Amino acid sequence: MKRLIGLLLLLSPFALAQTRPDDGYRLWLKYDRIQDAAKRTAYNRSAQFITMNSDHPTLQAAADELKMGLAGLLGQSIPILDKAGTRSGGIILEVATHPDAILKKQNDEGYVISKLQNNTVISGNTETGVLYGAFDLLRHLQTGQALDLLPSAGSPRVKFRMLNHWDNVNGTVERGYAGESLWKWHELPERLDPRYRDYARANASIGINGTVVNNVNASARFLTEEYLRKVAALADVFRPYGIRVYLSVYFAAPKTLGGLTTSDPLDPQVRQWWADKTKEIYGLIPDFGGFLVKANSEGEPGPQDYGRTHANGANMLAAALKPYDGVVIWRAFVYKADGAADRFKAAYEEFVPLDGQFDPKVIVQVKNGPIDFQPREPFSPIFGNMPKTPLGVEFQITQEYLGFATHLVYEAPIFKECLESDTYVKGKGSTVAKVVDGSLHGYENTLMAGVANTGSDRNWTGHPLAQANWYAFGRLAWDHTLSSEAIASEWAKMTLTRDPVAVGRIVNLLLKSRDIYVSYNAPLGLSRPWTGEHFAPEPWQNRSSRPDWTAVYYHRADSVGLGFDRTATGSNALAQYRPEITQAWNDPATCPLPYLLWFHHVPWNQKLSTNRTLWDELCVRFYTGADSVSWMRQEWAKVKPAIDPETFANVAARLQIQQREARWWRNAWVLYLQTFARQPIPEPFSKPEMTLEEVKESVRVYMLR
Amino acid sequence: MKRLIGLLLLLSPFALAQTRPDDGYRLWLKYDRIQDAAKRTAYNRSAQFITMNSDHPTLQAAADELKMGLAGLLGQSIPILDKAGTRSGGIILEVATHPDAILKKQNDEGYVISKLQNNTVISGNTETGVLYGAFDLLRHLQTGQALDLLPSAGSPRVKFRMLNHWDNVNGTVERGYAGESLWKWHELPERLDPRYRDYARANASIGINGTVVNNVNASARFLTEEYLRKVAALADVFRPYGIRVYLSVYFAAPKTLGGLTTSDPLDPQVRQWWADKTKEIYGLIPDFGGFLVKANSEGEPGPQDYGRTHANGANMLAAALKPYDGVVIWRAFVYKADGAADRFKAAYEEFVPLDGQFDPKVIVQVKNGPIDFQPREPFSPIFGNMPKTPLGVEFQITQEYLGFATHLVYEAPIFKECLESDTYVKGKGSTVAKVVDGSLHGYENTLMAGVANTGSDRNWTGHPLAQANWYAFGRLAWDHTLSSEAIASEWAKMTLTRDPVAVGRIVNLLLKSRDIYVSYNAPLGLSRPWTGEHFAPEPWQNRSSRPDWTAVYYHRADSVGLGFDRTATGSNALAQYRPEITQAWNDPATCPLPYLLWFHHVPWNQKLSTNRTLWDELCVRFYTGADSVSWMRQEWAKVKPAIDPETFANVAARLQIQQREARWWRNAWVLYLQTFARQPIPEPFSKPEMTLEEVKESVRVYMLR
Repeated sequence: MKRLIGLLLLLSPFALAQTRPDDGYRLWLKYDRIQDAAKRTAYNRSAQFITMNSDHPTLQAAADELKMGLAGLLGQSIPILDKAGTRSGGIILEVATHPDAILKKQNDEGYVISKLQNNTVISGNTETGVLYGAFDLLRHLQTGQALDLLPSAGSPRVKFRMLNHWDNVNGTVERGYAGESLWKWHELPERLDPRYRDYARANASIGINGTVVNNVNASARFLTEEYLRKVAALADVFRPYGIRVYLSVYFAAPKTLGGLTTSDPLDPQVRQWWADKTKEIYGLIPDFGGFLVKANSEGEPGPQDYGRTHANGANMLAAALKPYDGVVIWRAFVYKADGAADRFKAAYEEFVPLDGQFDPKVIVQVKNGPIDFQPREPFSPIFGNMPKTPLGVEFQITQEYLGFATHLVYEAPIFKECLESDTYVKGKGSTVAKVVDGSLHGYENTLMAGVANTGSDRNWTGHPLAQANWYAFGRLAWDHTLSSEAIASEWAKMTLTRDPVAVGRIVNLLLKSRDIYVSYNAPLGLSRPWTGEHFAPEPWQNRSSRPDWTAVYYHRADSVGLGFDRTATGSNALAQYRPEITQAWNDPATCPLPYLLWFHHVPWNQKLSTNRTLWDELCVRFYTGADSVSWMRQEWAKVKPAIDPETFANVAARLQIQQREARWWRNAWVLYLQTFARQPIPEPFSKPEMTLEEVKESVRVYMLR
Repeated sequence: MKRLIGLLLLLSPFALAQTRPDDGYRLWLKYDRIQDAAKRTAYNRSAQFITMNSDHPTLQAAADELKMGLAGLLGQSIPILDKAGTRSGGIILEVATHPDAILKKQNDEGYVISKLQNNTVISGNTETGVLYGAFDLLRHLQTGQALDLLPSAGSPRVKFRMLNHWDNVNGTVERGYAGESLWKWHELPERLDPRYRDYARANASIGINGTVVNNVNASARFLTEEYLRKVAALADVFRPYGIRVYLSVYFAAPKTLGGLTTSDPLDPQVRQWWADKTKEIYGLIPDFGGFLVKANSEGEPGPQDYGRTHANGANMLAAALKPYDGVVIWRAFVYKADGAADRFKAAYEEFVPLDGQFDPKVIVQVKNGPIDFQPREPFSPIFGNMPKTPLGVEFQITQEYLGFATHLVYEAPIFKECLESDTYVKGKGSTVAKVVDGSLHGYENTLMAGVANTGSDRNWTGHPLAQANWYAFGRLAWDHTLSSEAIASEWAKMTLTRDPVAVGRIVNLLLKSRDIYVSYNAPLGLSRPWTGEHFAPEPWQNRSSRPDWTAVYYHRADSVGLGFDRTATGSNALAQYRPEITQAWNDPATCPLPYLLWFHHVPWNQKLSTNRTLWDELCVRFYTGADSVSWMRQEWAKVKPAIDPETFANVAARLQIQQREARWWRNAWVLYLQTFARQPIPEPFSKPEMTLEEVKESVRVYMLR
């Protein structure tokens, strides 16, 4: 009986974990018990104990994670021992004092997993490497792989793998759709929400090693001692997980905080103020990562306010950081309010001439596309064109233009599409990925940043399947050669179900989701048909405080046709690319259809490569896109038996919303464009069930205060 | 063995519930297993089954709650049977077809619990009454009371017991400190967060029967069909729990939504618009509760925009509601931007002359005090002075002026202080409670409203102990004769611990918390020393867009003394009260010290009843108030063994913040007032550790964008 009570206490938590509804809090680190007893036994034989060769907090974190993970997966409490001694069948965590040849090939954050005297040894060049190895081993077990196919070695391809949180000091999140900010500023530094540690665990598990905790539209509050202490408390929680904290800075802080009369980056007092402030920060956060800056963009202050360049501004901050390990990340997201200019060209025109002028501590962070995270954009022409300046890429994980938290859009294909684009700057094969990972131009400071989709919602991301986007970003920042499919598959197995048929369906759903979204939202290279809050369709929008903040600026619909002429007859933005691209895209007949209206004003009756006219092709895409959401719902319904009921119902309801909204988008576009094209909806599609006026009326709801 | 496995499956959830950290989500409905086996057995004998006499959703909800509660408390799954038949030892839920004498004495929502043929019978005049009885029985068990002392009967003293949510359409909560809004507008109506039902359960358990889901600064969006469908989906979830939904309405909606040229309440088209809109609402929500209106207040539109009165506006809405069961709740929170006037007097002056002019469907909702939810206010002089108009009271549960979510302030004493105040309008004993519960003036539509402190934080209220304020509001709305202590005690037992010594300490801490807060924040009748966001001290604030939005308007510190003269030599606001009060409070020597500076400009060296000068008394209060937070921390430390570790740590950290901020408040006030009083800090207190300039500097942090 005693033994049975022991069993009872031991098993109950895991039994329960599988019977309670899953609220999504645990993300992909679920560690539910493996149902296959044989597999459990096999794993068990190699997990008799855990030991480590130092008491470094990061090794402790790795051991704790393994202990927790194995307790869940195997239903066994695995002891953490001081020393392995002569024991075998355990897991040894060690920073290698004498790294072997394989480990030597890995970088600072790399690891090797090997079998040695019947122990599984995770060795790293640093403690963080060991931690990454531990998560890799857990992922191996979570995804049900065999132990004789142990992951052998790993090393990140990019140095700075970061989340950018657009979190405001008042707790709101700009473009956040999953609740409030994770950071409780009024509670810090005294109270540490247990969630902070779980945030760090989740990030470390996918290799993210940096976090910018505040919005790029930065509050100067974060540079006050009071707030720096709060940030330092977060940094203390994140540190064992290999995550460094960065801050977005308000460029005018020397004036507003420091009481100076200027924030001119060449002014000695201003430079001294930043040097002093930086020293203060490092006093509180010894491993502070550095500054992220949005300057002279959308109303933010910057060096141009004083007739200085972006390089002047960035280099001033680099000088302040000189005594320390930190970097300056300077965003290239800039464009002036000039309706006659082409916003597409702005960032290139401002930044490319500055190549070679930046301090080595500066990384320029470039959005994946030339405009602003649209559902489909060509890659930014800046990539490849600043060989002397480390260029990081900025992706947006949060679904600002992708249906908030009610549309399913798996983003790995978006990230991959950019990374695999060929810039041709050093001939064929000069992909954006090779620019970003430094291999093309020899950058040492390489960077991939993702604007986070996390918030205070219990499941972190609002839409349960949007967790896959956070996951995919991290995995690609670690290794951009991973396929969208492989990432989706491992995520689904860890997060949703181990049923292989269901996993197959879910992966298929994820992989198709982005194209479906683009079809009903912005096909053939349309972009930016949004209301102010980027939720509802408003392609007819033609008034705004800035000309480039209207919808008509982007699609340029008229009685002749549709699209923005960016060839030599138009803005000539195409000339910012290498000739191989310019030539291929310059002709509407050879320009890839997804980018067609990005570069061409195409007549409504122009025949496309699909053998349909532009108008007909648009209708086909809008209608089949919206209809595909029904297919998504059907596919999701089929996985019901394999999915936790609460998660299933949650996703099912969101797909229902998505279907309603997809039709809304289709109706808005089709009815509006029809006023220019003056043609009927082609067979076999039926007329929208609403009039244009009714759609406009429904959109006006979202503009009421 | 089989039997043991059965046991294992049966016990594991409850075993676990007590070993996992408590995140506070379950509120006071925790149902953790009763540790005392004898008590469990005794309870068990009377809980062999549950049955009910109809399948009404509310009876089903009551049965489900009992089943869940008993499963937790007793560790037994209790069957819900179709019929009791000849069985005994069960719980019978029934709407009485032949109510006995005791039940007849209860009102519509009342219930009687009795023993009949060895069954426990919960009978109600309505299904909701039965539900309240079920929650009463559960509370009885949760608080460990004996079964032979069953709660016998219950009936609410107030008809409308409501939460007012100041939740905005964008998900933010005005004056919310516990995350975002609970309502996910972008997900509704398709997706129903499981939390909505738990919200309804929690409210029903304390007798709350109405909820205004949107901010009184109302968005017109809520009156669109799209949003009404979302609201209807919430109403469907709440309905089985006896909770009706209300909406705050935007008075200018006929113009902004309806496209009319006016929103004049006497205009026939406007009246028709509201009649049509109301009909539309009842089509979607048959038990819709009615409208809450903030009009001609702080910039909101209202009938005065058209030269009409509040009564004209309210009566127009009452006319629209005439075919239905709903009511109009019209707020008396009004004051004009007139620096020469006394804001104290404004609401009385605008509303009392309208007594007798309101439609019977209208309830005027009056804040507890004359200004705005200050830490300590005298009761509003409106109470008692509108005998022909049902007056509801509005309390603020969210801690706008009570330290947000980082200060512990148990509010039952605040609510009680107002309710027990004697208006003297019908002689001694004419308390505000008797005005509000209708017994004084024969109101039928009685109302108690609380501005909610709930949000999307996992534990609902941010500060774990702030759950007690939601609880206390509900209990007092049900029965205002309950003592603050009794409520605190039952809440603590249900929520935190059953250890009687720990409960005693916690109750003591709760009961003292408000006086402590007032001492360091606004002693002796000071008020409104706030920054714009009502977080940081700013008693020196003397510039604002409105004179009555400065701090100096309220405290009137000068070289002579401190306080607002509201006697006949000043604004004469005191004359709004009955002579018994005016006479008692008119003389600084007899005016209760807590209200002293509300009514008198007192010289710094005036001796008070405490035998100290005003200056010395202020210092004593500021210093002992701030020091008392140390005592609070010590007391909390003592209950550690009896409290869930996560909850313990959470509260401990918040008390640490409170201590830091209490000193900050003390320093701000003392240093600022010292510039007028020009006297040293009296013995034995030591000088603040900061200068006034340093305090001001620290406050400026909170004004940076």
